[in-house]
Amino acid sequence: MTETKPLRRLGAVIYDNFELLDLFGPLEMFGNVVPEIKIITVAEQPGPIPSVQGPKTIAEFGFSDCPGLDLILLPGGLGTLKQLKNPAMLGFLKDRASSAEVIMSVCSGTALLAKAGLLDGRRATSNKQFFNLAANQSERVKWVAEARWVEDGPLVTSSGVSAGLDMALAVIARLFGRERAESIANRAEYVWQDDPDRDPFHKFLNRGGI
Amino acid sequence: MTETKPLRRLGAVIYDNFELLDLFGPLEMFGNVVPEIKIITVAEQPGPIPSVQGPKTIAEFGFSDCPGLDLILLPGGLGTLKQLKNPAMLGFLKDRASSAEVIMSVCSGTALLAKAGLLDGRRATSNKQFFNLAANQSERVKWVAEARWVEDGPLVTSSGVSAGLDMALAVIARLFGRERAESIANRAEYVWQDDPDRDPFHKFLNRGGI
Repeated sequence: MTETKPLRRLGAVIYDNFELLDLFGPLEMFGNVVPEIKIITVAEQPGPIPSVQGPKTIAEFGFSDCPGLDLILLPGGLGTLKQLKNPAMLGFLKDRASSAEVIMSVCSGTALLAKAGLLDGRRATSNKQFFNLAANQSERVKWVAEARWVEDGPLVTSSGVSAGLDMALAVIARLFGRERAESIANRAEYVWQDDPDRDPFHKFLNRGGI
Repeated sequence: MTETKPLRRLGAVIYDNFELLDLFGPLEMFGNVVPEIKIITVAEQPGPIPSVQGPKTIAEFGFSDCPGLDLILLPGGLGTLKQLKNPAMLGFLKDRASSAEVIMSVCSGTALLAKAGLLDGRRATSNKQFFNLAANQSERVKWVAEARWVEDGPLVTSSGVSAGLDMALAVIARLFGRERAESIANRAEYVWQDDPDRDPFHKFLNRGGI
């Protein structure tokens, strides 16, 4: 008899002008949790989605035909500003978060989770350069300005861009054990900064307007 | 009068089953050298190119219609094995390297540069897990097993996966100054490990066969 491991489907939710490393840092780590995690990409409409830096990634699914998601990853990027006014995006996040095991955001992606009301009553963080883009979306969130990432139940939010790498490994450790996370970090020759409270970039915190 | 800064075109050369972070770690950094660097993606044929981890990236150009390249970035990944036997890939690299200012590889991408003969007589490194995949391609390369990355004139090779981030910042520092590289690392909230000789993963060096 062969043992069937439960497969978790991770939906990477993308949109025009997402930040490359916000998305692909975490996907590098989750994509090597084989065979327990299967990554799919989803956007409002399927097709090529341009990043801030230029390269386009294919969204395999649209919001209307996206299968069930166990894990959700939401990158940030300049395109966040437009998505904050997009009811289709906010509705999709709200709808899918209710049945997901873990909902993650990187950088300004946190602003979208806050706007969708998913962080109300929870602790959360965002990137240092435009912290208030997230913080201004809801006063009911316990904003943590000094953190590499913050875990509060199913909601996990990270600081800017490369912090998503450290957060992803923490979520892998939660789901599959610390040894597995370390093995994946070593394979990627990545020095995992595994302390969520250590934030080397807090000194750049800017709470001005955007 | 307005001053026109020279624009450098960076060609990211991709192929089926490239490793996500090998490509998008460096592109995060180079993509924020605005407006001096413009990123384009190129593969043997244009169209969607799947990564090892699943997500597909669009190659905008094929080898036959790719414009001139100032900078070349070559990721690694499982697909390297097939590309080592692909004369179109090896020919493209050889052809384009002769007119490029900097040619970079990440992880097993180094094996392709070695196979194309581009590293002969030079110092170079590759990832720790399958070091000999690169080393076996040419005896005329001065292989450096303990290095985060190695710069030898226009040829810059890095160790596994996430080492590409550190290498990219070093190349940005070479072209645009150290201050610029630091500013880009800070924006991405990335702790730049800026010593090419410090290799925390050398302890995992495996020189066995693949």
